Amino acid sequence: MPLKPDLPEPESAERRVGLAIVGLGKLSAEELIPAIRTSKHARVAALVTSDLEEGRAFARAFDLTDEDVYAYEDFETLKDRQDVDGVYIVLPNSLHREYTERAARIGKHVLCEKPLSVDAADAQAMVDACRAAGVHLMTAYRCQYTPHHWATRDAVQGGKLGSIKLLDSIHVQVETDPETWRMKLDLAGGGPLPDVGLYSLNILRFVLGTEPEWVFAALRQPTNDPRFREVEESVSFMLSFPGGIIANALTSYGAHKTTTLRVLGEEGSALMEPAFTYTGLSLTLTDKSGQSIPAFDSYDQFGLEVDHFAQRIRDGKTPWTPGEEGVQDHRIMDAIYQSARTGQVVQLEKHAGQDAFRGEKPEIPGQQS
Amino acid sequence: MPLKPDLPEPESAERRVGLAIVGLGKLSAEELIPAIRTSKHARVAALVTSDLEEGRAFARAFDLTDEDVYAYEDFETLKDRQDVDGVYIVLPNSLHREYTERAARIGKHVLCEKPLSVDAADAQAMVDACRAAGVHLMTAYRCQYTPHHWATRDAVQGGKLGSIKLLDSIHVQVETDPETWRMKLDLAGGGPLPDVGLYSLNILRFVLGTEPEWVFAALRQPTNDPRFREVEESVSFMLSFPGGIIANALTSYGAHKTTTLRVLGEEGSALMEPAFTYTGLSLTLTDKSGQSIPAFDSYDQFGLEVDHFAQRIRDGKTPWTPGEEGVQDHRIMDAIYQSARTGQVVQLEKHAGQDAFRGEKPEIPGQQS
Amino acid sequence: MPLKPDLPEPESAERRVGLAIVGLGKLSAEELIPAIRTSKHARVAALVTSDLEEGRAFARAFDLTDEDVYAYEDFETLKDRQDVDGVYIVLPNSLHREYTERAARIGKHVLCEKPLSVDAADAQAMVDACRAAGVHLMTAYRCQYTPHHWATRDAVQGGKLGSIKLLDSIHVQVETDPETWRMKLDLAGGGPLPDVGLYSLNILRFVLGTEPEWVFAALRQPTNDPRFREVEESVSFMLSFPGGIIANALTSYGAHKTTTLRVLGEEGSALMEPAFTYTGLSLTLTDKSGQSIPAFDSYDQFGLEVDHFAQRIRDGKTPWTPGEEGVQDHRIMDAIYQSARTGQVVQLEKHAGQDAFRGEKPEIPGQQS
Amino acid sequence: MPLKPDLPEPESAERRVGLAIVGLGKLSAEELIPAIRTSKHARVAALVTSDLEEGRAFARAFDLTDEDVYAYEDFETLKDRQDVDGVYIVLPNSLHREYTERAARIGKHVLCEKPLSVDAADAQAMVDACRAAGVHLMTAYRCQYTPHHWATRDAVQGGKLGSIKLLDSIHVQVETDPETWRMKLDLAGGGPLPDVGLYSLNILRFVLGTEPEWVFAALRQPTNDPRFREVEESVSFMLSFPGGIIANALTSYGAHKTTTLRVLGEEGSALMEPAFTYTGLSLTLTDKSGQSIPAFDSYDQFGLEVDHFAQRIRDGKTPWTPGEEGVQDHRIMDAIYQSARTGQVVQLEKHAGQDAFRGEKPEIPGQQS
Repeated sequence: MPLKPDLPEPESAERRVGLAIVGLGKLSAEELIPAIRTSKHARVAALVTSDLEEGRAFARAFDLTDEDVYAYEDFETLKDRQDVDGVYIVLPNSLHREYTERAARIGKHVLCEKPLSVDAADAQAMVDACRAAGVHLMTAYRCQYTPHHWATRDAVQGGKLGSIKLLDSIHVQVETDPETWRMKLDLAGGGPLPDVGLYSLNILRFVLGTEPEWVFAALRQPTNDPRFREVEESVSFMLSFPGGIIANALTSYGAHKTTTLRVLGEEGSALMEPAFTYTGLSLTLTDKSGQSIPAFDSYDQFGLEVDHFAQRIRDGKTPWTPGEEGVQDHRIMDAIYQSARTGQVVQLEKHAGQDAFRGEKPEIPGQQS
Repeated sequence: MPLKPDLPEPESAERRVGLAIVGLGKLSAEELIPAIRTSKHARVAALVTSDLEEGRAFARAFDLTDEDVYAYEDFETLKDRQDVDGVYIVLPNSLHREYTERAARIGKHVLCEKPLSVDAADAQAMVDACRAAGVHLMTAYRCQYTPHHWATRDAVQGGKLGSIKLLDSIHVQVETDPETWRMKLDLAGGGPLPDVGLYSLNILRFVLGTEPEWVFAALRQPTNDPRFREVEESVSFMLSFPGGIIANALTSYGAHKTTTLRVLGEEGSALMEPAFTYTGLSLTLTDKSGQSIPAFDSYDQFGLEVDHFAQRIRDGKTPWTPGEEGVQDHRIMDAIYQSARTGQVVQLEKHAGQDAFRGEKPEIPGQQS
Repeated sequence: MPLKPDLPEPESAERRVGLAIVGLGKLSAEELIPAIRTSKHARVAALVTSDLEEGRAFARAFDLTDEDVYAYEDFETLKDRQDVDGVYIVLPNSLHREYTERAARIGKHVLCEKPLSVDAADAQAMVDACRAAGVHLMTAYRCQYTPHHWATRDAVQGGKLGSIKLLDSIHVQVETDPETWRMKLDLAGGGPLPDVGLYSLNILRFVLGTEPEWVFAALRQPTNDPRFREVEESVSFMLSFPGGIIANALTSYGAHKTTTLRVLGEEGSALMEPAFTYTGLSLTLTDKSGQSIPAFDSYDQFGLEVDHFAQRIRDGKTPWTPGEEGVQDHRIMDAIYQSARTGQVVQLEKHAGQDAFRGEKPEIPGQQS
Repeated sequence: MPLKPDLPEPESAERRVGLAIVGLGKLSAEELIPAIRTSKHARVAALVTSDLEEGRAFARAFDLTDEDVYAYEDFETLKDRQDVDGVYIVLPNSLHREYTERAARIGKHVLCEKPLSVDAADAQAMVDACRAAGVHLMTAYRCQYTPHHWATRDAVQGGKLGSIKLLDSIHVQVETDPETWRMKLDLAGGGPLPDVGLYSLNILRFVLGTEPEWVFAALRQPTNDPRFREVEESVSFMLSFPGGIIANALTSYGAHKTTTLRVLGEEGSALMEPAFTYTGLSLTLTDKSGQSIPAFDSYDQFGLEVDHFAQRIRDGKTPWTPGEEGVQDHRIMDAIYQSARTGQVVQLEKHAGQDAFRGEKPEIPGQQS
């Protein structure tokens, strides 16, 4: 056979970092587990679930055994699994703190779905617990690990768009089920804001690399819709960043799926649309010579995120989006709710410098280091 | 010759409504005069300018004679021109009131470029003067006369997008000349807000057909840029409409040309981009079945606007965008500046009903009446 | 008045070149006359029509007088109109030769709509007649005068796309009227091929600048459709250009309006879509770094074409698309029909060099000379 | 835990159909194995490779063991692997026949990469061998299993576009390595035609569901390019289908990556672009009311194809794209080369009816059965 293939370079199974997936919802089943299975540095080593039978079906389907399936009450027995280096928490927001603290106590690193928790105080407690235990806490901000979002950030920070003046982001979708935990204030900590609006907030901060100075917001919570008894339907918020840069954002559980990010500079503009979907991200750069659409090789967003976590477990460096990054978003979301409640501008604590809450830069495919 | 052409139906020159163009800037020369020359109901009958020589060159080029060219100081002699039914005022904003009042005094109808004036009080005075004189005052809101904007409004008001929740609009461009009258507060009445941001404000009101209840705004005026000594560089404003519908808008003289309008409903969304340019408008409707881009025959925006004015001169009905429509936008812009100055929400006077300030619906090509 | 407008530079009416429009169909009424009226170098000075009443209505609408309207039988009296420098022939194809010869005899320059005639022999006779009379004959190939098509040609010939390998073009539309002269073989000279397919043929030659060496074609003429009793419904043709470059093209009167031009090179590709419409032309260049869409200022295609004709009347230089350019397309179309009839490849006469049949390069807005 | 996830339904590992991957090139490593690992009905059970060490690294990475890795010379020992139901042949084209015959002899079903072989005679021998052995032979025509291509076919065959008149397809890309087996005539059977042009040919047949009646083709093989010593660089071919429908296609190894499919009907048109890539397929339907872009849930093309193969192994029904489908494409490609060599039209054998060479319809996500 004369054929010499172009070798991909997954590592052997022995060297890939083992993760326990905590919570087997749709996201775990359809996105995370498939992505981790084909990632370069991580592997699924265990599943934690309330429904053992269902967990075992997953295990068989995904080449694990019945022994790799754990009940929530047996979470602590993961301590003895040498091949489980960390846990990936994919639970309702109100449970993030409990499972982070339990993981920290048994010495496992934590990758936690966004939002990190239900408010800034709770989120800070998670950071403290992981620091005390000497384990990593990483917030699963998938969009801070994609070539598309980095290309946007590079265009912004590298001066391609000239001086930046204004930003605009939309993340709205329709939630129809009044019974989902996402509509329960105590489980979710809020409505669309911490769920989908958080993408806009987090990525606006990411592309600028700076922190907002004040926020103003308004929200809509219809009184006659059973879905919105506890949480808001829509939020509009305005953020002011250093240098007088202003960003607008819209989020909702009551509007047709739309995800955008737009950055307006003196010499050009960047548009991501869709901006936050799992697949099909698109970036268009416009300047006086016309429009250009950068080409990227295909990639899996969750795989890149999980690989970053695995690499930080190995090298001990702070992840790019540590718990602190998640706490800061909670502080701002707390202020957004306060502004909407009072009708007043809410000032935020100043944080100078670039990337005040971030750690080691991720490796981005196709990006020059 | 067997050829029987598809007859266009311009009227004979005798019957077309004669207009005097007051002010021969770039807009008049490149857009308005060519558009009027090929409109169905209007014709250019006279030119008023400060530079008679230049005016006569225009006249010759556009098939008028030297006698059709007037100096500003001779404006009142237009009174005797029976073939001049109305004037189209295309002057710096601060001169709109003076020339409107002078036109009213000689009994000529007035089509006035947007913004109607420099603030709500001045604008109201123009409305009062025209009412007293029994002549029409129409604000030249070109975008309220296009098939694209009406198709967007029809989608919104006809229920195609389901219940409307949020809107978002951007109109930004770069102005480089610190000496232009647009940068002088007394001539322009403001910076990008009354010039380009007004498109967003006016069209947000148009597509919903209702009036905002409060406004919050922030502005940016860099201290070290000679262009922005008197006027703001950028404004972000948030409007709340009846039913809790919230709209965000961005405007600037310091960001790369971008014009958008987005309406987010429970069952679908509408995107116009570009939304406010003279040509190339594009509308995309998105719902769960995908995206669709309605097709329109080509048309001239200025021609449609001027034809509406000509028709209202003939039939005496109130134009769709009378002076009152322009006054209302000034009231809201005044509130936007107040909010930005104070950092507080500014409440607006309530106006119930649909299209509170509008008159006779225009004929829109391709639209069912 | 501090306002100093940006002056456009139409010439005074005295200096603009006067044209007589011969034939008042839809194209004349909706496109050509409005475009000429706002062109820089030309003006409409007379109308020639079979329906004098209708002609006079046009005349009044377009600021001419009844004296400027001529019957076909009085065509020769245009000879005495010193202010008529040339004629623009907008008649059924079979009449192009007669009116070109009549114009030549009275010493008027000729701009003739495409296709130049009904076959190569007739077209050559027109060239000969104009040469003998010492007047210009220009084929109205509008698409050879637009910034979009020149940017495509420049990308191809300037090496931006690397070595060119393949081209593909489509121009199809639906004709529904079996009684139109376009469906009569003696009036039109063919079906969609000389009408819309000619755009593909002509522009493929234009972007390469070379001449095809052989052609193969197939056509479809349904026997049960009253529209296609005399002319074909669809044609597919393949052209081979020097260097082994191959081009495919499709044309039809029975398919939904589509107009494209694609050039495939080793390092990139160019796509125009729509490629041949009166407005809304769009060019996308793609290479390994992604896609870019060049921006152009807006322009009127017919205005650019007519201005070129007017300038050549003044300076006496050969137009960019003289009669010879139209003859060459007829030779190739004759070969396409022959190939389709015989099922054989048809060899074409070789013509070496670039732009073998073209004259003085046009001024293209925004293009570096 | 109140969380009740939306259960995906992969089957347990025991029930998934086991496949041996024969050949570990880039396609296997980067696309096929990851896709099969996350498919619903299939699993990777063994690897066959020339480089055992590399094979074992793959095995470890993909959760197999060293025992699952086979040398080509030990291929026949797969006979005893009860858990290996079929083989997926991913080898240079010239080896397809040998490994298909070897697989048939040991009673394994065969899924073979396209093109099925190097010419029609060889391909027919493969069909015969599998029929004699009572095993399935399926041609891996991935694009006949995607929602996008089925939606195009449904639009065409369901009458949405009106009567179909013309089709056009492009599949070109740049191959730079003169030493790849794809440039060797004896290994590949041809150049771009059987590799990428085959997509156009196969999908043109698929969307119409009928078989071409004649073909005309031209090819380009530069004499001075080391890449094209044995195989052609570019091919243009024209196909005539029943009812006078004509299709044009372009393929090349020397032009910037472009993949399109366009179908032109009397009432509308369909455009797929990109049409043949692994990800990012896009379909636009255009009719008189504008453009619409159908939305699809995301899917993995290879996963859908392999699941179809697995289901047919279970139920014994003929796959949608059996060996016969691959043979027919070889017959047409043989005719294309003959036409290009002779400069003559080549007539093809007639095959009446719809889908003359196809089997059981695949389940397409989102499609009504």
